[in-house]
Amino acid sequence: MPNSIRVFAPATVANVSCGFDVLGFAVNEPGDEVLLKKNDRGKIRIVEIEGDNGQLPRDIEANTCSVVIQHYLKKMELDFGVDIWLKKNMPLGSGLGSSAASAVAAIYAINILADYPKPVDALLPFAMEGEKAACGTGHADNVAPALFGGFVLIRSYNPLDIVRLKSPDNLFTAIVHPHLEVKTKDAREILKKEIRFSDSVTQSGNLGGLVAGLLLKDYDLIGRSLQDHIVEPIRAILIPGYDNVKAAAMDNGALGAGISGSGPSIFALAEGPDRAKKAGDAMKKQFEKIGVDCDLFISPINQEGPRVLD
Amino acid sequence: MPNSIRVFAPATVANVSCGFDVLGFAVNEPGDEVLLKKNDRGKIRIVEIEGDNGQLPRDIEANTCSVVIQHYLKKMELDFGVDIWLKKNMPLGSGLGSSAASAVAAIYAINILADYPKPVDALLPFAMEGEKAACGTGHADNVAPALFGGFVLIRSYNPLDIVRLKSPDNLFTAIVHPHLEVKTKDAREILKKEIRFSDSVTQSGNLGGLVAGLLLKDYDLIGRSLQDHIVEPIRAILIPGYDNVKAAAMDNGALGAGISGSGPSIFALAEGPDRAKKAGDAMKKQFEKIGVDCDLFISPINQEGPRVLD
Repeated sequence: MPNSIRVFAPATVANVSCGFDVLGFAVNEPGDEVLLKKNDRGKIRIVEIEGDNGQLPRDIEANTCSVVIQHYLKKMELDFGVDIWLKKNMPLGSGLGSSAASAVAAIYAINILADYPKPVDALLPFAMEGEKAACGTGHADNVAPALFGGFVLIRSYNPLDIVRLKSPDNLFTAIVHPHLEVKTKDAREILKKEIRFSDSVTQSGNLGGLVAGLLLKDYDLIGRSLQDHIVEPIRAILIPGYDNVKAAAMDNGALGAGISGSGPSIFALAEGPDRAKKAGDAMKKQFEKIGVDCDLFISPINQEGPRVLD
Repeated sequence: MPNSIRVFAPATVANVSCGFDVLGFAVNEPGDEVLLKKNDRGKIRIVEIEGDNGQLPRDIEANTCSVVIQHYLKKMELDFGVDIWLKKNMPLGSGLGSSAASAVAAIYAINILADYPKPVDALLPFAMEGEKAACGTGHADNVAPALFGGFVLIRSYNPLDIVRLKSPDNLFTAIVHPHLEVKTKDAREILKKEIRFSDSVTQSGNLGGLVAGLLLKDYDLIGRSLQDHIVEPIRAILIPGYDNVKAAAMDNGALGAGISGSGPSIFALAEGPDRAKKAGDAMKKQFEKIGVDCDLFISPINQEGPRVLD
């Protein structure tokens, strides 16, 4: 049984155009790192958080990582103490599942420190508790892909029903993260509570097409299905230059593009790393044109979820 | 080039619970038969329609089969005449894609009489024209599975984008057709134009799950996904005894059950013919309890679409 463990958990793209609240996928980078060390004090302590500009709570009742760990230790009736170091490699409010990555890294790490009493599948509810602490709601569309890797469909929230979808090997993503903040809460509040039934039918058709495209390894079908007539038109107004950035991706080889989570990051999917890079560069250029700095990440779909570092 | 041809086209179950307007599947029985014979008069003529109790129009401008054939011959610039015999093996307004079966049988047959100038894929728009003549709208969720067999997802109507979904070999359906008529138009008019967005998300999750379940051959996932919180609660009130009939299916081995098309037929899906039979018998018994006669069909998923008879 190790006394310390360092774990990386990946960023995730939730919603994926037509998959609002029900679909997400994991990427190879960015991601968060958590280092846990058992201590003799019997208490949980946050030693250091790096890369958050001091924005995350250090209070163990409020911090995502410590909430997850506390909840786990209590449920498992374990009473050892844990010192926590957290390294954030992505900004808060980026739309990349920042809190989900921290929650998943923490739960995966503490389960190893406790000598694997739980299979990975059983860790999801713990990680969702952490999300809840951070965001107010325990959505699974970031947490589940961060934990399992790959594309994940949340068939149902109540009861929770997760379907892992193997995606084609050569599917890559380009993500631009403009240095703007969109609060998940704001992005949620501007959504309509009622929608036209015909729009719901269109959305279902596209989601069905996307699921089929992934499983049938049909890149064109994936591309045709990456459409969202419900949420994107509303949320796009929170992201300056959105239409041009998306158009740049489509003009440069992307299969499709959309808002990552609640934004402001924008993802594109493409067949192969070269097209993903080309689409990503074009998206970045569009943001730079209007004076918005941004990070660019090119990655295959992460298939493994969290991993132990050194 | 034959001078006459007889073709069978299958009944279909559209909507399939969570797949309103975007999903359908074909069954082995019932289905319609069309016999076409070239004539020397250069005109289209309906010689006989059997099994419709005189309800279908004999006017060639209004009858599904003749509309389809006219449209095809005009488009292909062919000028031979055709005599049409139609044998209906299912009632009108049953929710089993009656007009779609006739339209598909007609278009498949005339394409053979014309010596196959069109591949099967290209026949869909012609068959949809026939549906339009019969129903006022050219929905594809009956016509497409009748033409292609199997499960078919209509990813998009505009442009038309059809995805064929291979279903597991041992998936069977039981269909009860109670002797009641529900008009598609009425069943459509009672639907709400606006729905809660949260219901749309639930529906999408289930449709994604159903598509994944079919492609992954995961019977349990198919069963869990066969839910409809939007249309079923509204349309069920048009079908006396609906809740009990559905419950009987679920209690007797069905993976799921729902309204076929716009009803009043009710379908259940099950793993294997025995469970389908058991669920079907139980559904039929429930209708009989309240004095409603019904037909029962047990069938694997039809994988071939229309076929030439003798």
